[in-house]
Amino acid sequence: MHFTSETSFDGVCERLFVLNDIPGVLWTPEGAAGTRPLIVMGHGGGQHKKAPDILGLARRLVTECGFAVVAVDVPGHGDRPVVEEYNRIATENQARVEAGEEPAPLIAAFQALVARQTVPEWQMVLDAVQQLDHVGAGPVGYWGVSLACGLGVPFVAAEPRVRAAVLGLGGALASAADAARITVPVEFLMQWDDERVPRDQSLALFDAFASADKTLHANPGEHGDMPAFELDSTLGFFSRHLA
Amino acid sequence: MHFTSETSFDGVCERLFVLNDIPGVLWTPEGAAGTRPLIVMGHGGGQHKKAPDILGLARRLVTECGFAVVAVDVPGHGDRPVVEEYNRIATENQARVEAGEEPAPLIAAFQALVARQTVPEWQMVLDAVQQLDHVGAGPVGYWGVSLACGLGVPFVAAEPRVRAAVLGLGGALASAADAARITVPVEFLMQWDDERVPRDQSLALFDAFASADKTLHANPGEHGDMPAFELDSTLGFFSRHLA
Repeated sequence: MHFTSETSFDGVCERLFVLNDIPGVLWTPEGAAGTRPLIVMGHGGGQHKKAPDILGLARRLVTECGFAVVAVDVPGHGDRPVVEEYNRIATENQARVEAGEEPAPLIAAFQALVARQTVPEWQMVLDAVQQLDHVGAGPVGYWGVSLACGLGVPFVAAEPRVRAAVLGLGGALASAADAARITVPVEFLMQWDDERVPRDQSLALFDAFASADKTLHANPGEHGDMPAFELDSTLGFFSRHLA
Repeated sequence: MHFTSETSFDGVCERLFVLNDIPGVLWTPEGAAGTRPLIVMGHGGGQHKKAPDILGLARRLVTECGFAVVAVDVPGHGDRPVVEEYNRIATENQARVEAGEEPAPLIAAFQALVARQTVPEWQMVLDAVQQLDHVGAGPVGYWGVSLACGLGVPFVAAEPRVRAAVLGLGGALASAADAARITVPVEFLMQWDDERVPRDQSLALFDAFASADKTLHANPGEHGDMPAFELDSTLGFFSRHLA
């Protein structure tokens, strides 16, 4: 794990790193010492580790909760090289949708493919970050919606260090089998009028989580319209389960 | 409006009153002066104006938000006399359910009947309470689940002073037409495994609200199992919309 830069702003220390060619970013409270809860954040499709929604929530988790937050670029995103196979599939899928095919099963199959690469990558990142003195082996949470739900459900199912997860904007087609292996508390976000994830698929994914403590939040609007007040709820959820 | 008692405890002033034979209770911050937001709370079936869930949330709304809270007994409940017609219908309904009939339509019809009495009652209470100097004509919220959802949806639809409502544990059979007239922000609570309200009925009622700002919270468990953390969310919701 090589740190390539360190900057501080408004109480948050941001360190860029590279781990086995995976570019990532770690946010911690300025002057932090000792073990603390860590949130792994996944970014959406076409986004990157420092996308505005990631950065905004990460800063709040650091300043309001004192947590550490880590995010890395998904393959083919941000500072990572193009993945020819993924691009080819994405192009094919787009053509199939334009020809009238339902997008949900295509998105599901694609996310399952990418997850086979990202689950072990994120576990390696977790191993490395938890070695740092000012992070340590404290409780871990996961946050990810849309693509990062499709990748996050298999990650949370596979990784016993994750003790609570905020997931959403994803459907059962991609993730129901892995969701049925998740027993930690889950806050699940859906958009009631999501144009990409059919309503019944969202509800079926919420239903599939084996967690005794799970909560569904649905709001009107399309895939990209999640209201800002859900961020307050996310902070409350992680504080309740990890702090 | 005749006040019959006044007690104070831990920062909350509780005054019992009778208004046109309707027994009620008003909670305000100790020493309150001037206009403040007011929450009208409805109680569940078989409960009363000072049931533990009403009292607990009312105290928090007073102490943490500085709001006033009012609750009255529903006809046939608490300190009000038995209503022979309601008792007869309840007994008939119980027999029909035991004979295999679906309870949801029976509950819906019963709540619609009672609402024709409670909507004007609650409007009269609102008129009277807003005359008090330490309440005044500030923004009004409504909170009610189960029976108090069936009664609350027509109340909120009819009453333009209500600017935000927390509703839940109710279905579309009782309330969809009134829900379609509600445009104020709504937080809607459902229990995922509700044995009294079918899941699709809960989702259909949420869908029916005309509010652009509405949010659905679903949690596992039966009708009576709503988790305590929803109270925090309720406080946040009313603070956001009324404070």
